[in-house]
Amino acid sequence: MAKTLVFGHKNPDTDTIASAIAASYLLNQLGGDTEAVAQGTPNAETQFALDFFSVIAPRITTSADTETVVLVDHNEATQSIDNLSEVIVEGIYDHHKFSFTNSTPLYINAKPWGSVATILYYEFKQADIDIPSKVAGLMASAIISDTLLLKSPTTTAYDKPALEDLAAIAGLDDYEKYGLSLLKAGTDLSSRTDKELIDGDAKSFEIGGHKFRIGQVNTVDIADVLTRQSGIEAAMVAEDYEDFLFVITDILNSNSKALYLGDATTSIEAAFGAKISDNVIDLPGVVSRKKQIVPPLEKQF
Amino acid sequence: MAKTLVFGHKNPDTDTIASAIAASYLLNQLGGDTEAVAQGTPNAETQFALDFFSVIAPRITTSADTETVVLVDHNEATQSIDNLSEVIVEGIYDHHKFSFTNSTPLYINAKPWGSVATILYYEFKQADIDIPSKVAGLMASAIISDTLLLKSPTTTAYDKPALEDLAAIAGLDDYEKYGLSLLKAGTDLSSRTDKELIDGDAKSFEIGGHKFRIGQVNTVDIADVLTRQSGIEAAMVAEDYEDFLFVITDILNSNSKALYLGDATTSIEAAFGAKISDNVIDLPGVVSRKKQIVPPLEKQF
Repeated sequence: MAKTLVFGHKNPDTDTIASAIAASYLLNQLGGDTEAVAQGTPNAETQFALDFFSVIAPRITTSADTETVVLVDHNEATQSIDNLSEVIVEGIYDHHKFSFTNSTPLYINAKPWGSVATILYYEFKQADIDIPSKVAGLMASAIISDTLLLKSPTTTAYDKPALEDLAAIAGLDDYEKYGLSLLKAGTDLSSRTDKELIDGDAKSFEIGGHKFRIGQVNTVDIADVLTRQSGIEAAMVAEDYEDFLFVITDILNSNSKALYLGDATTSIEAAFGAKISDNVIDLPGVVSRKKQIVPPLEKQF
Repeated sequence: MAKTLVFGHKNPDTDTIASAIAASYLLNQLGGDTEAVAQGTPNAETQFALDFFSVIAPRITTSADTETVVLVDHNEATQSIDNLSEVIVEGIYDHHKFSFTNSTPLYINAKPWGSVATILYYEFKQADIDIPSKVAGLMASAIISDTLLLKSPTTTAYDKPALEDLAAIAGLDDYEKYGLSLLKAGTDLSSRTDKELIDGDAKSFEIGGHKFRIGQVNTVDIADVLTRQSGIEAAMVAEDYEDFLFVITDILNSNSKALYLGDATTSIEAAFGAKISDNVIDLPGVVSRKKQIVPPLEKQF
C-alpha cells in the first residue's frame, strides 16, 4: 500500500480528480510512494474526461489509512477527509483562500491561478519531468473545467500557455471543441435528482459566523433548471443548513441565477446588490463561486 | 511609497530580516513595488551581518500602511503586524507550521527547509534573477543562523548547496569562520537586561488551549546564563504568561537547558521525558524550537 494518499475536496470536480492523479504521478517520479484517491465518484463532466483519455477513476475513500497525506485543490478541514486531524499533511497544492492549521512545517504550493492543474503543470516543468499523454489530457480538462474554457474571471496569464501545451501533449488538436463537449457533458442535469443537483458541487463555508452551503451547477439553459425550483428548494430545506445558496450558471453566456434559502435575505441582497424575488437572485456576469460569490459574502458577513 | 510591505515575524531574527530584504528585492525584479520592513530592531547577530555586508536595517513598523502585504518567515497572526486582519496577504514564504486563514486566493511557497532564505534562493534560481552580493551575504547569514551552521536537525539537503552558492556570490571565502563569528555575535548577553533576554527571540504559541511563550537565547556557556536565573525568572513572572519556557542553547555543543514557569510542570516533564528541578529542565541534543520544542508540546497538550 502506498505510504501517502493524495486527494482533493469532497464532491470532487474535474480539477480535484485530475490534480490528485497528476500530483501523485509527479511525487512518485520524485521518489515518493503515493496513491491518488477521491472522496467521491466523478461527476458526469469528470467521467467524460476519464473516458476520453481511458483513465480509471481513483479509488474512493473518505478517511486516510496512511499516516501522511497530500491535499490538492483544497486546504480547509471542512472540505477534507474525516480523519484529517489524525494524519500528517505533508503537502498542499491549492488555489483557494486559506484556512489551515497544523503542527509541523510542510510543503505548500499555492497560487491564485485558474486551476491546480495549472500549478502542477509548472511543477512538472520545474522538476523537468515529462507528463504522460493521459495525465496531460486530464490536466487540460481540469483547466478547461475550472476556467470555463479560459473565460472565467479566475483565469490568469499562466492558464492559457499551460492548457495549450497540455493539449498538445495529450494530442488534442482542437481543445476548444473538446472543451465545449466536456463542459456540456457536465450540464446534462435531467438524470440527476434534486438532491444530487444541490449536492453535486456543494461546499461548506464558515463566513462571519454563518454556516454557508454553496452549491453550483453549470447549464446551457437556466430557465430549464428553474422549472424544478420547488423540488430543488425542498431538497435544500431537507439538508438543514443555516444559509444555502444554489448557483445556476449559464456556461455559454457567463451568467448565473441563485436560489437562496436562509434568514439573511437583506444581507445577501446587499452583498450582491440585487433583490431576491421568489428566493431567486439574478447574478449577471457571475460564474465563479471563488471569485464572485464567496468574497462578496465574506465582505458582507 | 511602496504598494506592498514585506516583513517577517515579531522579535526579528537574521532569517526574518534577510528574507524580507531578499523577497522584496526578488518581487521588485519581477515587477512588484514592495518595501522590506521589520517589526523591531535587529538583534546583535543580525546587526553583525548587516554591518559586515554594509546593509542598512529595514524601517521598523508594527502595522501596515499599505493595502497589501507579503509575509516571510511566519504565517500566524500572533507573530505578525497588528492590523493583519485589515490588509490583503498577497504572499507567504515560510518554513514553519501553519495557522493561517484569509479570504482570497494567494501565493504561498512553504517548504520544511532550514531557512526561508534557502527557499528564496531557489526562487531566485527558478526566476533566473541574479542575487546581488550584499543580499546573498545576508541570505547566507540567515541560513547559518537558522541551521546553526548546518548542524541543527532542521537542516535539509537543500540548505548546504544554497549556503555554498550564496557564500560564493557574497565573496565569503570561509563561510564556517564567518558563521562562527556571526553566531558568537548573538551570544554576548552581558549587555542585555533580563527582560531583553527573555523577549529577544520569544514567540507566542496557542498549544492545546494553553497560551505558551517560548523564548530562546544562544550562548557558548549555559551555566553563565543561569547565574542570572533569579533575575530572569522575575522578568518572566512580570510578563504574566500562562506558560513561559525560556530555552538556553549551547551552540557549540548543541545542547539546551530551559527555564519553565507555569502550572503544567507534569505535562512539560512528560513532553520532554525529563524532570524539572529548580524550574530548570535539561534538554540534551535540543537546539531547535520548531523541531524539538514545539512538536513535543503539541503532542502532550
